[in-house]
Amino acid sequence: MLQLLPLGRQKRNNFMKILTINSGSSSIKYQLFDMPSKRIIKKGFIENIGERGSRIKDHQEGMRLLLKNLPAVSAIGHRVVHGAEEFRQPILIDKRVISKIKRCSKLAPLHNPANLEGIQACRKFIKDIPQVAVFDTAFHHSLPDFAYIYGLPYGYYKRFGIRKYGFHGTSHEYVAHEAANKLGKSLNKLRLITCHLGNGCSITAVRRGKSIDTSMGFTPLEGLLMGTRCGDLDPAVVTYLQRRLKISAEKTEYILNKKSGLIGVSGISNDMRRLSRAYRKGNKKAKLAIEIFVYRIRKYIGAYTAILGGLDAVVFTAGIGENQNIVRNKVCQGLFLGLKKKPKILVIPTNEELMIAKQAYDLIKR
Amino acid sequence: MLQLLPLGRQKRNNFMKILTINSGSSSIKYQLFDMPSKRIIKKGFIENIGERGSRIKDHQEGMRLLLKNLPAVSAIGHRVVHGAEEFRQPILIDKRVISKIKRCSKLAPLHNPANLEGIQACRKFIKDIPQVAVFDTAFHHSLPDFAYIYGLPYGYYKRFGIRKYGFHGTSHEYVAHEAANKLGKSLNKLRLITCHLGNGCSITAVRRGKSIDTSMGFTPLEGLLMGTRCGDLDPAVVTYLQRRLKISAEKTEYILNKKSGLIGVSGISNDMRRLSRAYRKGNKKAKLAIEIFVYRIRKYIGAYTAILGGLDAVVFTAGIGENQNIVRNKVCQGLFLGLKKKPKILVIPTNEELMIAKQAYDLIKR
Repeated sequence: MLQLLPLGRQKRNNFMKILTINSGSSSIKYQLFDMPSKRIIKKGFIENIGERGSRIKDHQEGMRLLLKNLPAVSAIGHRVVHGAEEFRQPILIDKRVISKIKRCSKLAPLHNPANLEGIQACRKFIKDIPQVAVFDTAFHHSLPDFAYIYGLPYGYYKRFGIRKYGFHGTSHEYVAHEAANKLGKSLNKLRLITCHLGNGCSITAVRRGKSIDTSMGFTPLEGLLMGTRCGDLDPAVVTYLQRRLKISAEKTEYILNKKSGLIGVSGISNDMRRLSRAYRKGNKKAKLAIEIFVYRIRKYIGAYTAILGGLDAVVFTAGIGENQNIVRNKVCQGLFLGLKKKPKILVIPTNEELMIAKQAYDLIKR
Repeated sequence: MLQLLPLGRQKRNNFMKILTINSGSSSIKYQLFDMPSKRIIKKGFIENIGERGSRIKDHQEGMRLLLKNLPAVSAIGHRVVHGAEEFRQPILIDKRVISKIKRCSKLAPLHNPANLEGIQACRKFIKDIPQVAVFDTAFHHSLPDFAYIYGLPYGYYKRFGIRKYGFHGTSHEYVAHEAANKLGKSLNKLRLITCHLGNGCSITAVRRGKSIDTSMGFTPLEGLLMGTRCGDLDPAVVTYLQRRLKISAEKTEYILNKKSGLIGVSGISNDMRRLSRAYRKGNKKAKLAIEIFVYRIRKYIGAYTAILGGLDAVVFTAGIGENQNIVRNKVCQGLFLGLKKKPKILVIPTNEELMIAKQAYDLIKR
């Protein structure tokens, strides 16, 4: 079982071991950080939780195995996808927080319950260690209302919480800070556009360190073209498809989330590496999928440059953003012709786990 | 009955009287132009067609009355909303064209059938006069595929024609030409953004006289906030609403098209004049609706400036665009800070009827 470090001594030294947990529907990823040095002591994952033939029946069993093999831990930072309007910053988890996170599950039925499984399992096995929830939506709490309210009857916002929330907040915040470091400038003086291009893709306008707009919306479906998600779409297409194909709301969501995006357009793959290879070999559908992917990013960069009133740097991160030259080059090619001052182009590996560890650390240190 | 001018003599002089017809579901609007002088000889409308208690039972009856009171006509130009991929320019109407327009009705079930009613009625009463169809979508036929293909399974484009078409094309094309005249430059050398802000709103990027992107999509629902339409929306909100409210595809379309936009957000009115007054009196919902309206336009102008590689002029037209100072000022305020060269801001009254007359005239003259 897990060995506990006496918190009192650690706090005096501001020296802690922070475990980060990303608990998904069938997996738990973890990293153990030495803070404030940021050194990774250990990392890994447990998968196939609850799947047929798996040795690990549920998250509780998974977490027990995981904790058994770890050294002493001072605190835990949990990734939680949806914090709705309740959570605007990291928070120490207690019963009240848990029931609020449950309430947010209505808005993220695939993610929040899995995140909660991880939290509950940790609370079962380790009672006396502070646990912190870090929300994927929190960085975007600074959006102004005219950016987050949709053009719908206002009552839908009040009654159902339908508004833009944005996601990938921890990643956008992390790379924005790193960009300021790299540029040797105060974040407070920078106008940044951060592009998180992974399996899911989103783009954020960051002014003075605060998110002022972001491409994902009420759900992660809105915005850029993604591996399997359609991104921006005439809302009338949704109902047109339902009438033409005679499909339910659920089936429609499945198509738009799982059968669309890069794989839908190309018919080849949702993986940009495979698509780039096909593109280089002259495959037309791969070319079209990549061109749409790039074009959307270009339009968002233009839109965000306008609302930022200029642009100091564009930051690329996550799988595609960090590794796909072809995408970065196509995005930037000729894009800044009309601008007074060319922005810097930065590639910064994202590190959501470190950001979670840092936020948990900062919260507990206080 | 209508008196005909012998076409032979007119053509020698390139002198014609062109009647434009905009046939809607319950109204027919018309203007009679002297071409090429562009002088309006007569204009008017017939309304309440087919409505309860109305004297005019159908479009045929309406057209008969309309034509009875007109002087001689050389040709007719009909507004047709949806030309799909069939029609990329104005075309002389014959039976084949009519059956193609019918086929396009699947994509515009509210508009094309009403447009066809007008065409059929004219053909019944005037047999020997050339009639020309001018399509609201045609100006946008120059969009590149990466701008018009959605992030959906590619088969939906091939099987159902689901793609961005764009609308208000006749208006965008008209004001783009007028802008070039005003600026004393060749359209071929200009990068323009044209904002058609009326009851419906759309915005178009025009490079060298060609539309390269536009905010309306598969239907007129996409893009800017409008009087009663929601514009851009996370597609997952559509299905979320259906599940929460237990409503059909049809009911959802009704809400998004008729109960959303300025009226939905403000709860006050879909009329920008009323909203501006409420805003000046301090009404918060009116303020929010106007701010969202303006913010969307700003983002599109930014996006289109980026894809145009710079910007020579922004053109405002239609009811709101021509008359609402408050909107134009808010849209432009600080928006061009980052640009090398400030674009010109133009207000140009739209004139779709004249453009239809001109296009019919040009086609017949050839």
